Amino acid sequence: MQLILLSGGSGKRLWPLSNNARSKQFLPLLEKDDGTMESMVQRVVRQIREADLTRDITIATNASQLDIILNQLGESVSVVTEPERRDTFPAIALAASYLKLRKGCSDDEVVVIMPCDPFTESGYFDCIGKMAECVRNNVADLVLMGITPTYPSEKYGYVVPEQGEKPQGISMKVSKFTEKPSVDKAKELLQMNALWNGGVFAFRLGYIMNIVRRYIDSESFEQTRSRYSEFPKISFDYEVAEKAESVTVVPYTGQWKDLGTWNTLTDELHKPVIGNAVMGPHCVNTHVINELQHPIYVDGMEDTVVAASPDGIIICRKKYAEEIKQAVDSLTPRPMYEEKRWGTYRVIDESTYKDGNHSLTKSITIKAGCSTSYQLHRHRSEVWTFVQGEGKVVLGTEVTRVKAGDTMVAPVGVKHSVLADTDLTLIEVQCGHPLSEEDVERYEWSWNE
Amino acid sequence: MQLILLSGGSGKRLWPLSNNARSKQFLPLLEKDDGTMESMVQRVVRQIREADLTRDITIATNASQLDIILNQLGESVSVVTEPERRDTFPAIALAASYLKLRKGCSDDEVVVIMPCDPFTESGYFDCIGKMAECVRNNVADLVLMGITPTYPSEKYGYVVPEQGEKPQGISMKVSKFTEKPSVDKAKELLQMNALWNGGVFAFRLGYIMNIVRRYIDSESFEQTRSRYSEFPKISFDYEVAEKAESVTVVPYTGQWKDLGTWNTLTDELHKPVIGNAVMGPHCVNTHVINELQHPIYVDGMEDTVVAASPDGIIICRKKYAEEIKQAVDSLTPRPMYEEKRWGTYRVIDESTYKDGNHSLTKSITIKAGCSTSYQLHRHRSEVWTFVQGEGKVVLGTEVTRVKAGDTMVAPVGVKHSVLADTDLTLIEVQCGHPLSEEDVERYEWSWNE
Repeated sequence: MQLILLSGGSGKRLWPLSNNARSKQFLPLLEKDDGTMESMVQRVVRQIREADLTRDITIATNASQLDIILNQLGESVSVVTEPERRDTFPAIALAASYLKLRKGCSDDEVVVIMPCDPFTESGYFDCIGKMAECVRNNVADLVLMGITPTYPSEKYGYVVPEQGEKPQGISMKVSKFTEKPSVDKAKELLQMNALWNGGVFAFRLGYIMNIVRRYIDSESFEQTRSRYSEFPKISFDYEVAEKAESVTVVPYTGQWKDLGTWNTLTDELHKPVIGNAVMGPHCVNTHVINELQHPIYVDGMEDTVVAASPDGIIICRKKYAEEIKQAVDSLTPRPMYEEKRWGTYRVIDESTYKDGNHSLTKSITIKAGCSTSYQLHRHRSEVWTFVQGEGKVVLGTEVTRVKAGDTMVAPVGVKHSVLADTDLTLIEVQCGHPLSEEDVERYEWSWNE
Repeated sequence: MQLILLSGGSGKRLWPLSNNARSKQFLPLLEKDDGTMESMVQRVVRQIREADLTRDITIATNASQLDIILNQLGESVSVVTEPERRDTFPAIALAASYLKLRKGCSDDEVVVIMPCDPFTESGYFDCIGKMAECVRNNVADLVLMGITPTYPSEKYGYVVPEQGEKPQGISMKVSKFTEKPSVDKAKELLQMNALWNGGVFAFRLGYIMNIVRRYIDSESFEQTRSRYSEFPKISFDYEVAEKAESVTVVPYTGQWKDLGTWNTLTDELHKPVIGNAVMGPHCVNTHVINELQHPIYVDGMEDTVVAASPDGIIICRKKYAEEIKQAVDSLTPRPMYEEKRWGTYRVIDESTYKDGNHSLTKSITIKAGCSTSYQLHRHRSEVWTFVQGEGKVVLGTEVTRVKAGDTMVAPVGVKHSVLADTDLTLIEVQCGHPLSEEDVERYEWSWNE
């Protein structure tokens, strides 16, 4: 069985912890049994493995998330990146092409598609196991998960089983789909035993490849990826599920939550305070998450979330916190914290001076054995002061060993890369204009020569 | 007329904007008519000059406030620093000794003592003018200001005029003093036309020097200062006012506020937002002061103060904000922002690493024409990247010109100083252990040789 995890999202609702580089599924806010923290995507991968569903996990995502996925999950998963944002059908088509054309899976292989961000319990993964079983037993071409509704929601898509159909064994035939109905219509649907569409699908690889080949009939994954824009911008539900002739649904009853807003996310936090903060005695249902060094003191707050990161600080009644979406773009012009495949950086100062000069100062940590790309900048110089660890720097083609206490300068236009022998931290001061992440040209360099 | 401004205070109640180095009277939060901001001490000095009382202002303060006073007021005032914190009588005795022994004022000179932090209007300074007039006319040895009470407060000292005495001309004879009475006692005092003791005193210099000489009879200010610990730890009220045989009080009726808590201070702010912050539509009586670069988004708050500085962030219902006093010491181990006589610094990162190393990164701005002291550190090296302006660096005895884009290293144990030709900003990375403001040895250096 092959499992494809869909990872998308822009992360505006959980500002300032999430941003374009760190969507909600990457926030390390969930406490494990051993007291350490994990992100939603780390949690779902752990749950898949604990349920013993499969070790073959492929994450279908946008290129902007590749670094943070590698940082959080390492090499334990495959990652397929879409060259541009289209919709769920193209993303799944590309991942299926990867399984077929790159990984060489057979047409009979069972594939399960699931989102990476629902907050669920082990029964959810048992249900996925049953869905795969239905595909293996040829119960239907397409098997999907139906979440037992708890109220007549307008937010979800509904899966309506054939009338009179009751769960026989583990699945029901699907009669039709209804997307985001009115409350009245939703009430009717609940009368008809309709279920919420959980976005989890199981099928054989050959089934989806027949549909993929209608748009791109290619012999190589690279070619499919290069022709990605030929896929229609359409969701998997519309392109595949609603057109399928043989569809069944496996019901799931249990915890199933979207922790996509401060309101729902703080419900699942084990502690009211994460990070450097002190809560006074007059707080009620208040949560503080502080990723900054500055201590936070909170008192007299009710139903409030406080979250602070290098991107900014939100202080908000939870019921109003969704409105942050509208304000985000004006608040944060650039990400101030990013997880890269080689480690992390954090902007600690960004200033424009009266004489027109600009500076940007970062704390950068490179993981042992990793290196930054070999790059140059057209508009800025960089001064590095090493404050932790040991490693090597290449400037031009000259390699120098560095350790904590050392200083190096990368002038404008000079190619450079830093390799960490142990975990290596440096304070980088950038001078120039403009000081943007886009001012970078990357080249090939081999540290082994 | 000589005016002595008393400047004390530890600044815990207005954390995180105030700290041991920046008491409440130095916060630049009051808006002038021209829209620029000033601190309480800048305001009171401006008001004294606008009232044309005197140009001879001496600030009596602790050594820890010398730099910020010079930064905010420049050379326009004299500053007398007590070698240790004692009480108001020793502080005033030292300042009076400065006027007599250093400045050479005559015994007949009228001296007015006043606190530097009451928030008042011009009538207050007119009252001070009348007090000086009373001293000049020999109405009494000691003249003090009595604030017309607005309620029977337990917090203040009361000045009780002689019974049957009504304001004749501008002053009343004083019968007795009562310190912090119960509410019932305070109500009785109000019946007796008692006034609050405003801590403003006027007398002839010779009068106070006769008392000073009982403890230290010295011919030089330096000697008096070196024997400072011989003065008793006692307030001016107990040592002088309550023992005086001839005391009158001049009443003042008008604005007289202590902006020493978030509750009273925010009442006087003209704008709900100072700094980089966005307030959502659901806020009521809420104030945000942001001295950090990180943007702040606030919504759904009521009667709340949000204040953020490099020292930390407070988010608090105003009515609970005084309780911050108890928490401050554990929140802020060291000041993260200071105004020095030569400019300002701001700590932008302070980190301890897994390998045991430490680093502290500052943004430092030196004002044109100023220089840091010629100093060395026993436990740290400093790397400077200049990001604004032009100046000179001395390392050992070698002088180098520097400008934005340059880098210099001051190794452990090497004497150094930086001189700003124009406003000069540098990012300083400190490596070593411990990284404290106390690790400094200062030496003499002349930039003119």
